[in-house]
Amino acid sequence: MSAPIYLEDLTPGRRFTAGPTLVTEEEILAFARQFDPQPFHLDHEAARAHIFGGLAASGWHTAALTMRMVVQALEGLPWGVVGGGGELQWPRPVRPGDELRLEIEVLEVTPSRSRPDRGTALMRNRTLNGAGEEVQIFTVRIMVPRRPQE
Amino acid sequence: MSAPIYLEDLTPGRRFTAGPTLVTEEEILAFARQFDPQPFHLDHEAARAHIFGGLAASGWHTAALTMRMVVQALEGLPWGVVGGGGELQWPRPVRPGDELRLEIEVLEVTPSRSRPDRGTALMRNRTLNGAGEEVQIFTVRIMVPRRPQE
Repeated sequence: MSAPIYLEDLTPGRRFTAGPTLVTEEEILAFARQFDPQPFHLDHEAARAHIFGGLAASGWHTAALTMRMVVQALEGLPWGVVGGGGELQWPRPVRPGDELRLEIEVLEVTPSRSRPDRGTALMRNRTLNGAGEEVQIFTVRIMVPRRPQE
Repeated sequence: MSAPIYLEDLTPGRRFTAGPTLVTEEEILAFARQFDPQPFHLDHEAARAHIFGGLAASGWHTAALTMRMVVQALEGLPWGVVGGGGELQWPRPVRPGDELRLEIEVLEVTPSRSRPDRGTALMRNRTLNGAGEEVQIFTVRIMVPRRPQE
């Protein structure tokens, strides 16, 4: 168990990291068959002819693998990681063999005006490949409890 | 195979639908174990005590199930469904037994100024539960080829 992370521990600029996560071709194909069955996620030949220029993971697969790293990185959050949504970007594709890393940066912390026991943190979750290039950026606001008063 | 859908076929207000997709408890647990291993996605007891008030699917699971419906609804797109990202919202949780439906609406169509063979379509993909309530809204811009000149 990590030490608990309360709202007071989240100052803008604080970073959390996780990874690496290896993305295998087998996993790319399995995810695509289940959730995103398009040729460029399923077949090398079809993928070469496509804008991707080769087999690429579904963006939703990248998002799901990122979430697994987010859960590791933010294990100490008492209410877990629950976001109501956010802005999602996939600047470049994820390829078989890529090793993904996660870098979370706290952007903004806002105590609730109506609920003194909580607040929200705006975070930018950047998923990077082995070359350090961004493959996903998700900017999300999550609810975090304040440190209990003794 | 559906008839091909070109940029000229996408007028603002046009709708596409797919579903229903049944979400089973077994699938919720399997997805969470793999990608979002937090107690409220894995365990009824823990989920009851959480803000969700009961077992809920990972938002990324909802997103992945939605993508499967998007691929069905937009099968006719010649270059497939490839988005660079978008605005994602999860207004309410998905529960075991929910039947999800997809409603896509074309919001805006923009021919490319530099590439006469293509353009982009801004779409709002709403995922609804059996009660017709929104469980996810994803607003995304995708690239679509223009109808080839004979």
